[in-house]
Order: sequence, then structure tokens, then C-alpha cells
Amino acid sequence: MRKVYLDHYAASPVLPEVREAMLPFLNGYFGNPSSLHSWGDSAREALEEAREKVAQLIGGSPEEIIFTSNGTESNNLAIKGISAGSRKKGNHIVVSAIEHFSVLNAAQTLEKQGYEISLVPVDGYGRVDLDALREAIDTDTTLVSIMTANGEVGTLQPIKEIAEIAAEKEVPVHTDAVAAAGFIPVNVGEWGIDALSLSSDMIYGPKGVGALWIRKGVRLIPLLDGGVQEGGRRGGTENMPGIVGMGKAAELAGEQLEQRVEHLSGLRDSMVERLPATVDHLHLTGHPSERLAWNASFVVEFIEGEGMLLFLDGQGVAVSSGSACTSRALKSSHVLSACEIPPERAQGSMLFSFGPENTLEDVKYVLEVFPPIVDRLRAMSPLYAKFIKERG
Amino acid sequence: MRKVYLDHYAASPVLPEVREAMLPFLNGYFGNPSSLHSWGDSAREALEEAREKVAQLIGGSPEEIIFTSNGTESNNLAIKGISAGSRKKGNHIVVSAIEHFSVLNAAQTLEKQGYEISLVPVDGYGRVDLDALREAIDTDTTLVSIMTANGEVGTLQPIKEIAEIAAEKEVPVHTDAVAAAGFIPVNVGEWGIDALSLSSDMIYGPKGVGALWIRKGVRLIPLLDGGVQEGGRRGGTENMPGIVGMGKAAELAGEQLEQRVEHLSGLRDSMVERLPATVDHLHLTGHPSERLAWNASFVVEFIEGEGMLLFLDGQGVAVSSGSACTSRALKSSHVLSACEIPPERAQGSMLFSFGPENTLEDVKYVLEVFPPIVDRLRAMSPLYAKFIKERG
Repeated sequence: MRKVYLDHYAASPVLPEVREAMLPFLNGYFGNPSSLHSWGDSAREALEEAREKVAQLIGGSPEEIIFTSNGTESNNLAIKGISAGSRKKGNHIVVSAIEHFSVLNAAQTLEKQGYEISLVPVDGYGRVDLDALREAIDTDTTLVSIMTANGEVGTLQPIKEIAEIAAEKEVPVHTDAVAAAGFIPVNVGEWGIDALSLSSDMIYGPKGVGALWIRKGVRLIPLLDGGVQEGGRRGGTENMPGIVGMGKAAELAGEQLEQRVEHLSGLRDSMVERLPATVDHLHLTGHPSERLAWNASFVVEFIEGEGMLLFLDGQGVAVSSGSACTSRALKSSHVLSACEIPPERAQGSMLFSFGPENTLEDVKYVLEVFPPIVDRLRAMSPLYAKFIKERG
Repeated sequence: MRKVYLDHYAASPVLPEVREAMLPFLNGYFGNPSSLHSWGDSAREALEEAREKVAQLIGGSPEEIIFTSNGTESNNLAIKGISAGSRKKGNHIVVSAIEHFSVLNAAQTLEKQGYEISLVPVDGYGRVDLDALREAIDTDTTLVSIMTANGEVGTLQPIKEIAEIAAEKEVPVHTDAVAAAGFIPVNVGEWGIDALSLSSDMIYGPKGVGALWIRKGVRLIPLLDGGVQEGGRRGGTENMPGIVGMGKAAELAGEQLEQRVEHLSGLRDSMVERLPATVDHLHLTGHPSERLAWNASFVVEFIEGEGMLLFLDGQGVAVSSGSACTSRALKSSHVLSACEIPPERAQGSMLFSFGPENTLEDVKYVLEVFPPIVDRLRAMSPLYAKFIKERG
């Protein structure tokens, strides 16, 4: 059976060049960058080289990069660390309704500690309501956190305009760029933002490493107290193989951005154009044009996403019904709900996330196997039976 | 020039078997354990297998293991997470004066938030004063955190007695076993403790992964909010290659414990017996017998540790003058100071930490190159000149 992996938002293979770059650090180059001897020196050089490469991908300075263990830690560090660092100025945080759970749940934790959280709504395409954002920012607001792009529905946010609105009231802006970096040009200076989260695995680097870029001068209280690693902003011995891998992945992401976008958006557009023709009552979610190159997300009426996922898996096709981080929580998607997609449609969500190894043949295969799956699932669906009966 | 690496407390080479176990997860096995398809299934199986292996090393249950990004995160999660989880019961934490900075600084952060911290003193060998511990525990104490062994001076703590004292007042006990696990038999049940920190790199696994064992029923507030990974206790996509590597390292650590201890303690004893004969005014630090197999720590009078370290590096020998985590902080060691070693002696601290690849030839080489280095450094030392003059 053909194997078609279309779940790169959950996980991607590490690029061969990245793996090659990492291997020496699982072998002879095992030093601790904090050590003062020559073994430490070579580790330290590799650490700083990786830091430069990550900084370059987003137009930041190397000393503004803090390596973390994943995008979730980067988001937690930004939300909790910046809030704690500006506690004297205020206790109000503004986030969008469609943030990743690592932002939303970090904000919720702060809420329990006496912070006030405002959720900015989005339109049906998942674009943040800029007027609502402007209204939400108050004199005691100390942070705005709005993602660069939503991985679940693919929608890109107008991040420059968001930063301008926050700048009017001198409020720092953090953006979760985990789903977007490497797939759109990122320039923190041009964007006018103050902090940005990255994850290695989304740019085909290894799992277990991420980064937070934070503008020099923005006060940050660490989450992990310990040694003076990462400029005293994140204790703990550095994940050298992971960090070196992320550095290489960032370098390649910058070099290959255009060709990756061309390849991925070709696959996405093919799926977006052709899938609705194979199945009735199927709708694209997210923005039709302002969306991530790798993301083709849909809702299919009268069906549950999990059923589609399992039946597709039986045909060798891996997809998800949204974010892998919450797939086991068995809750309906807060993102689709914020886009005002009714729950009975949202339950049939399905995300195709493309990666470098995918081809048009993969799309073609899905177009073949998918309609019979929908037919089988609908044949078992009481909702569909009711719909057919009512339609008469 | 001969290369002799004796800084395994800072970093160790990954064992070949560990690297082999990891490689598939940097290659074909790239799935996200949260995914509901077959790629996710194989990742999930590997994750749970690694969890079992880590649990087995310490006599815990797999569901009580939380994978983290390093020992520092494990310690922060234990100190902050257990304290936050029992905030209603009290706000007093008891730690020893010689804890790792990831414990001490986490406690300090809590102090700023209104917690009270008691530091239990140690004797000249670095053993915790049990009477002082008993006195320090109060009705509002919610956590005792005392390390299993100190990596800097090697001293083992009487962890069972510590747990008994805490149990009398029904206070949970966390122990930082990062330096000890794999080098002494660990059994959390027999010890009667409630939480235990581990780091992969100390058992010759990869950097960038650690674990916290926490007894079922102990309330823990997560540090990293996000998805429902790790039973909702630590968000973020799992570091699969790292976790699989740590699992393999834990398995080998359990299997090879006796032979490792025999090998390492042979090297340690050789160094401890023979080094003082080569150089005057050199003293062992830590406990003479109750100490880690891999640890031979000394202070050398009239010399600065950094000088010895750099001169030894020039002869191909890697050592440290204490903890790598603080080597760049340029502070004198809080551990030696707690052992009541006067500052002028403590500045000449030097730690030989042995690993699997070391041999008696390595010890012999150090015994050859070390005395001339001490002579050269003392020839430059005003303190030594003064001492010689006063002695007459």
C-alpha cells in the first residue's frame, strides 16, 4: 500500500543535512559549552554558530536568541516571563482567540494568579479583528501576543498592523511564529515586534528544541532558574545536538524559502481546488489566499474528523483533524469555533499539512481514496441520514 | 599530545548503543506520539517504552515519569510545581545549603513570591545536618528538597533518614538525583521519597532530556502549559530522539551499575590515594568514603582553580573547578563554603570526574603533568610567597 504522510504540522522527518550536522554532537563533540577547556570551546563555538543562524532566519541579533526545548516552552517563557518582568506596570494581557494552547493555557495560568486576559476575536477566515484589538489594549496592558499564522486553519495574521496598533500604546508584542517561520519571510525589525517563538521541528529540524527571540531591553523573568546559560535567561545544560540541528535547519529554511513555498503551495492549491469536487458538503477553513503554503484545511459535514483520520490511516494516509497537541484531549477545536464554524461542522475537520517529500501523486492518491471513505462514514452517520430525509 | 577527559560531571560522550537507539528517530521514525495514525502509534510505543526503562532504573512506575529537557527543568518543575500545588497548606520550603543552583535559584524565585526558605547546613564533609533538618521542618512546610549526592564534592546524603524525618511531619521529599542515579542503587519506594530528578547526560545519554519522577497523588502545577502531553503535566511535542536515548541510557545504567561503580571507583581511589603524594597542601573535599564513584575532588592551596584548569587543558587534560553550570559565573563555590572550607582554599578547587572511557593510564598521566603545573602556578602566587616567607 502506498504511504502518504500529510501531517507535517504534527511532525516532519529531519532533513538529511540536519541529521549530518547533528551526528558529531552525538559522537566526538560532546563538550559542555560552559566548560573552560578545549572540549567546552568547540561546543561553545557550535552553540554560537547555531544562534547566529537562527537569528538570521528572522532578522534578529544572535544575543537576542534563547534556545528552549520546543515552541511550547518558547511561548510559555514569552507569556509568563514578559508578564512577570513588567508586573509593576500592569497585569493585563491581550491574546487572540485562536492562539495555540501553549499561549492560551499560559495566559489562563496567569489569570489564576490575578492577571486579566482579553481574548481578541477573529473573523470567519481566522483573521484577527484589528478594531477589537485596538479596543482591548488598555493603560495596564503589558503584553499583546498574537500568532503569525495559525497552523490549524493556515490563516496569516496582519502582524505588522498588529504591531503598529500595540506600538501606539507602547505595549510589547509577542508572536508565535512556530507554524509560519520558514514559510513566509520573517523580519522582526520590519515587523516592529518584541518577541517571537520558533520550533525546530516545524522547519524540518529535530524535535526537542525551540527558540525565543526577545528584543534587547525587554525584561524577561526566566522560567528555568539555574546556571548562567543563555545569558542567565534559561538554566540547564544546552541540548547541543538539538541546537546544532536547529541551526542547520534555520539556515536551510532561509536559503530554500522560495522554492519550498512554491512546491508546498502547489500541492496545497491542487488539494484545495480538487478535493471539493470529489465530495459534497466539504468546505475550506481559514483564509482562501492569506494562508500558509503547507496548509490545506477543511471541514466535512456529517462526519467526525477522527473517523476520517482512522479510515485514511487504513489507506496509508496520515492526516490530522487539527493540532496534534490536543488530538488526545478529545475537545472540539477552539480555533474553528472562533471562526464561527458551527460545532456539527467543526467535528468533521481535517488538516492536510504538506512537507518537502510530498508530490502531486500524493494529492492524486488522496483524491482517489477519500470519496469512498466519506461515503462509508456518511452511510453510518445518523446526521447524514436525517439530512437526506429532510432534503427529501 | 595525550588527550585525557576527566570532566564527565560537565558532559560525557553518548554511549554507542544509545546513539544507535536514537538514530531511527532522527530518520524514518519521525512521528508525533500525539498523532492518531500509525506514524503516531510507533512514536507513542517508543515513548512509553523509554518511560518504562527510566522508571525501572529508580524503582518507580512509568506513569509517574515526566520527561523534561534536562535536570534543571526537572528540579524547577519539582520545586515550583509541588510548592504551587500545595500553596494552600503552607509556604515554607526546606533545602540544603549545597543544592545545585537549579534548586537554590528556584527556591529563591519562590522567596520573592512570598515563600519562606530554610537552608539546612552541612558538616565539613558535605553531609546534611539531620538535627538541623528536623528543626527546620515546621507545620507550614510543604516541601523538603535535598540532593541524593552532590556532584561537586561527591558526598552522598543519608536520603532514607532524611525521608524518615520529613515523613514524621508528613512533608513530601524531593531529591535531585542527577549526579547519583546510575552510580548508586536507587529505589524511590524503599527511600520513601515523593519526587526525584534525573538527567540523561549524566548517565551517558544525550543532552537535552531529563525526567522528573513524581509519586502518584502528589499535586503538581505544570511549568509548561500547553497540550496534554506527559499526562497534562508538561506541554510541548516530546523530544523523541532524546527520550529514546535516555530510555536506552537508563536501561544500560541499570544493567551495568555494578561494573561501572567498580571501574569508576577504582580510578577515583587511585587518584585520591596518589595525587596528595605528588603535591603539598592538597586536600580531598567531600566525604572520604560516602561518595560518588566517579568523583575525586580536591582543593589545592595557594592556587586558583581556573589557572590549574587552563594549564591542564594545555596538557590535554580536561577537568573543572566545580559545576560547569556556574563555571562562567566566576563566583566561589557555595558548596565548598557550606563545607566550611575557607575561601582562600576554596578558590583552588579541582574536580576530576571519571567516565567509562577512562583508564588508570589517564590517572598516571595526570600524576605526571600535575605537579609541574602546581609548581609553576605557585611560583606566580603572592599567597604562596607569603606562606613560604612566614614559614621561614
